[in-house]
Amino acid sequence: MSLKGNAIIGQSGGPTSVINSSLAGVIDAAIKSDSIDNVYGMNYGIEGFMNEWLYDLTAQPKEILEGLRETPSSALGSSRLKLQDEHFPKIMEVLKKYDIRYFFLIGGNDTMDTVHRVEAYCKEVGYELKGIGIPKTVDNDLYGTDHTPGFASAARFNALSVMQGGQLARDMKKVDKFVVFQTIGRDAGWLAAAAACGKKKEDDAPHLIYCPERKFNAKEFVEDAKACIEKYGWVSVVVSEGICYEDGTPVSAAVTKDKFNNTEFGAMGGASVALNVHKILREATGERGEFQIIESLNMSAHDRATKSDLQEAFDCGVEAVRLAESGETGFMVTIERVSNSPYQAKVGKTPLSNVAVRAKSMPDDFINERGNFVTEKALEYLKPLVTDLPNYVELQPIFVKK
Amino acid sequence: MSLKGNAIIGQSGGPTSVINSSLAGVIDAAIKSDSIDNVYGMNYGIEGFMNEWLYDLTAQPKEILEGLRETPSSALGSSRLKLQDEHFPKIMEVLKKYDIRYFFLIGGNDTMDTVHRVEAYCKEVGYELKGIGIPKTVDNDLYGTDHTPGFASAARFNALSVMQGGQLARDMKKVDKFVVFQTIGRDAGWLAAAAACGKKKEDDAPHLIYCPERKFNAKEFVEDAKACIEKYGWVSVVVSEGICYEDGTPVSAAVTKDKFNNTEFGAMGGASVALNVHKILREATGERGEFQIIESLNMSAHDRATKSDLQEAFDCGVEAVRLAESGETGFMVTIERVSNSPYQAKVGKTPLSNVAVRAKSMPDDFINERGNFVTEKALEYLKPLVTDLPNYVELQPIFVKK
Repeated sequence: MSLKGNAIIGQSGGPTSVINSSLAGVIDAAIKSDSIDNVYGMNYGIEGFMNEWLYDLTAQPKEILEGLRETPSSALGSSRLKLQDEHFPKIMEVLKKYDIRYFFLIGGNDTMDTVHRVEAYCKEVGYELKGIGIPKTVDNDLYGTDHTPGFASAARFNALSVMQGGQLARDMKKVDKFVVFQTIGRDAGWLAAAAACGKKKEDDAPHLIYCPERKFNAKEFVEDAKACIEKYGWVSVVVSEGICYEDGTPVSAAVTKDKFNNTEFGAMGGASVALNVHKILREATGERGEFQIIESLNMSAHDRATKSDLQEAFDCGVEAVRLAESGETGFMVTIERVSNSPYQAKVGKTPLSNVAVRAKSMPDDFINERGNFVTEKALEYLKPLVTDLPNYVELQPIFVKK
Repeated sequence: MSLKGNAIIGQSGGPTSVINSSLAGVIDAAIKSDSIDNVYGMNYGIEGFMNEWLYDLTAQPKEILEGLRETPSSALGSSRLKLQDEHFPKIMEVLKKYDIRYFFLIGGNDTMDTVHRVEAYCKEVGYELKGIGIPKTVDNDLYGTDHTPGFASAARFNALSVMQGGQLARDMKKVDKFVVFQTIGRDAGWLAAAAACGKKKEDDAPHLIYCPERKFNAKEFVEDAKACIEKYGWVSVVVSEGICYEDGTPVSAAVTKDKFNNTEFGAMGGASVALNVHKILREATGERGEFQIIESLNMSAHDRATKSDLQEAFDCGVEAVRLAESGETGFMVTIERVSNSPYQAKVGKTPLSNVAVRAKSMPDDFINERGNFVTEKALEYLKPLVTDLPNYVELQPIFVKK
């Protein structure tokens, strides 16, 4: 006999374009489940859960539940509360009060840590609970899964932006000489690397990509950027918000200090990477250029999501319920890549202890030796995910004889 | 008998997502024209023209010409050269050398000034030339036309970004309290105003919009932003890069100084509007938030172009050739709005002297009295242009009883 009771689902951390697809998958499967009675949703994550802010998802109109698959961001409301030991008694109280036996959270490292600890705590105190994590993060920095739902869509946003910004920069090269595109990615360069997916030939954007996995050398950067300007007449540069100089100082740090003159991080600090890289290049070349700081726009641009990302996010939600129903607990649903051409993947699972807290960097051989671009190997991994990029044309160099 | 000879077409100023559609329209009509022999393209605008960098557009493969309609930015290459009187003899020399009798430029105010002056110069020296301008600018600041090709698509980019960023900010309001979106728009607030097109109800983004047509009062801004945070739990702010304080100081100026401590404009100066507005709000509230600086990304995002913008841009190109063929000269093609529901428009024309150099601001009654949002009248103008916005859902407030 399978465990009977109610289910709770929450979203945590930063949103993505497809995280509501995972939510829709969980709700869909949970409503159909014989083991699950009511399906509740945490309003504002574990913080809302402890406050008993619980959506009755079973009572939502059908068109709202269907619309979730077309809606970006975290419809339940998100939170960044870091779980503390003193929270457990309150959590247990709410679990019992609402007879919750199925516990699902969609999120990243910290969220997986939360599921892991809640599930372990329940085991310890003898409260039967099936806890399954559903991966989500545009940063793609979760262990145990080929990639995370949300990554491919944010990656496509970056690839599109850099392609389109490159078209513009190339056509305007008589006026401006460089364009710097900044992407989120504090610890890992996956999203910066993905900007190369639309590049077809050498002079296409981007020309230089800097990831947090390697130290940023301003002198080499200026040399390389100048070489591109010399060769192509312009240069397209992609920077991850987390890049640091060799002494560990964040590239974002030079300009932004708070009122106590401390280096500041967060939206403000991170945002100034492009500003500083732009400044370095402007001072070194005397040329004009621009910088683009999209911040979270690639986390919510549903119109640019990839079809497979949306489907996989949904499938992960469904699989979480299937695992829990069949008695599994303490796992995160994963995506396993089956083949690259045609791209095929299937859902799997990994113990939460494999995933929680740690961030997965790009493999060393995904970045070239100079640390200023990605390798073919990186593109082999990335391109099957970042699909449906446009084919722009260029006029052929057929000129009238003078 | 109509004038026989070759045609030249050029693109000038900043690109748009649809300017190549106008180019395609001109080429298509010019190739079919009995009056026009060869169709040449200026590589890098009037600057390239004087250097005799001329594409032979008639010789381009058909698939390249068709692909132009799907390709953003200025395929011919653009320039910002400001026409000087001393340029005329060289221009005349090239016109004669290549037997050019049809002269088309796609661009904004300055470009219309160029067509106007070249056309007038030719008349003066007795060289028969038909000169027609084709409007283009994401800024929508050209006189004589209901709107400019390129505007609606850039406006849709802004509306989408602010909708999507708003979804995210609302769902994350327990963590961050504000989001500041900066759009290009030095002299006119059309693109900032357009960010409101996706707003359906009071608490939807954006809550506050600041346009260059009104002075920016930091004290009132803080009051209004705090009131939104109080009411909705968060606030979405849209700023035009060109907004100035009451004493005329650009809002971008406070932070950015060049190495001689001069206030700096251009990509760097303009870009810091959002940064400064973010700083004002952060200091006034003590809360976290983020800012987004997309710069030219909305000028080249072809995947977000509106269908009618693409079609109108093409139609303007075709109409330019039709006018010139039928003996007209000294005009800019215009778009005349016929009706709003269903939206219908037709091409028209206006003398270049009506358009050249001056920038068209938004009408005073498009902005509310407080200067912090647009009016219904603005939205009546904008919404028929900024089409095909998504319908995102929100969970209904059906909560489980505590």
